[in-house]
Amino acid sequence: MPQLTFWYEFASTYSYLSVMRIEKTAAAAGVDVTWRPFLLGPIFKSQGWTTSPFNVYPAKGRYMVRDITRIATQRGLTFRMPETFPANGLKAARLATLGVGDGWGPAFTRAVFEAQFAKGLDISSDDVLLEVLAELDLDGADAFTRANAPEVKERLRAATAEAQERGIFGAPSFTTADGELYWGDDRLDAALAHAAGAQAGASA
Amino acid sequence: MPQLTFWYEFASTYSYLSVMRIEKTAAAAGVDVTWRPFLLGPIFKSQGWTTSPFNVYPAKGRYMVRDITRIATQRGLTFRMPETFPANGLKAARLATLGVGDGWGPAFTRAVFEAQFAKGLDISSDDVLLEVLAELDLDGADAFTRANAPEVKERLRAATAEAQERGIFGAPSFTTADGELYWGDDRLDAALAHAAGAQAGASA
Repeated sequence: MPQLTFWYEFASTYSYLSVMRIEKTAAAAGVDVTWRPFLLGPIFKSQGWTTSPFNVYPAKGRYMVRDITRIATQRGLTFRMPETFPANGLKAARLATLGVGDGWGPAFTRAVFEAQFAKGLDISSDDVLLEVLAELDLDGADAFTRANAPEVKERLRAATAEAQERGIFGAPSFTTADGELYWGDDRLDAALAHAAGAQAGASA
Repeated sequence: MPQLTFWYEFASTYSYLSVMRIEKTAAAAGVDVTWRPFLLGPIFKSQGWTTSPFNVYPAKGRYMVRDITRIATQRGLTFRMPETFPANGLKAARLATLGVGDGWGPAFTRAVFEAQFAKGLDISSDDVLLEVLAELDLDGADAFTRANAPEVKERLRAATAEAQERGIFGAPSFTTADGELYWGDDRLDAALAHAAGAQAGASA
């Protein structure tokens, strides 16, 4: 089955749009998705930014809210900016890294993005994350302990380093087996078509 | 007829994509297009950039070339980066401002973008611009003289100031009569649909 790697950051507003639709869209395209949470902070830092570009460039930030609101409305999705933006997504990213290995990564990711961008909650809060885990019938205390294990921390660090090596500079991003990079929810369909087509070509 | 204002900057790679398709796409949507050349330089400067963001952020620049190459290929369009990037588009923008008033603005704009992004020429060169004008059967010397008249310079300054007031921070951008702003060639279809729909709503 053709494959697409989905790179997302928990504080990223446009990642929310892809998180909420990628499974259905990829299934329709016959493409298997690998979920790769990573951290944009270190990448932004190397570009000289200490916060989200939507805070660094306020006109861009105002436009982003308007743009996502329009798209979310069309898709029947609730969207609101959380009071704290960007949220510190480190704990969520470590939990998701653990969850991807355990099989509950996508469901956890969707629930955290909904908590943040539909309910406006601060996902750096342990309480918010514990509630999400509880809703998924997972043992929150156990998940937190395992998410802080050195090998999970290292897996997240490696994902961030690999993202940067692949030329990723924002989220969501999508990479294909033959090395193509796509950036932005508005490139998801092109990325899926390429993944499916490249595979078709390879097996022809 | 519903109306859409098309804001473009001559050094903008993504503007090339819209310049080459907007007339046909807008006609199919039943929308009338107002061409508004403006300058991104002063807007970028107010954000602390002295060159294109694709030079400020090299990873973004490399991605942009790949992204546009893929899209151009799909559309049967030639794309190559000019040796000098970003080009100083001031003369081209003044000529286009004149041309929009005279009726040859869109044809001139397309020819200049093709010279730059299909042939790789430096559009800050008088010779390149004179050749484009000659191909359109226009009197180049006369056009240059009239493009440097104070009222044309002022019209371009006013367009740039209005762009900034409207929250425009990149190109291409599209604005509708009811005040919506769309940024990027990938938002052209949504902008046209909104312009056509808003009009339909207004006349209902």
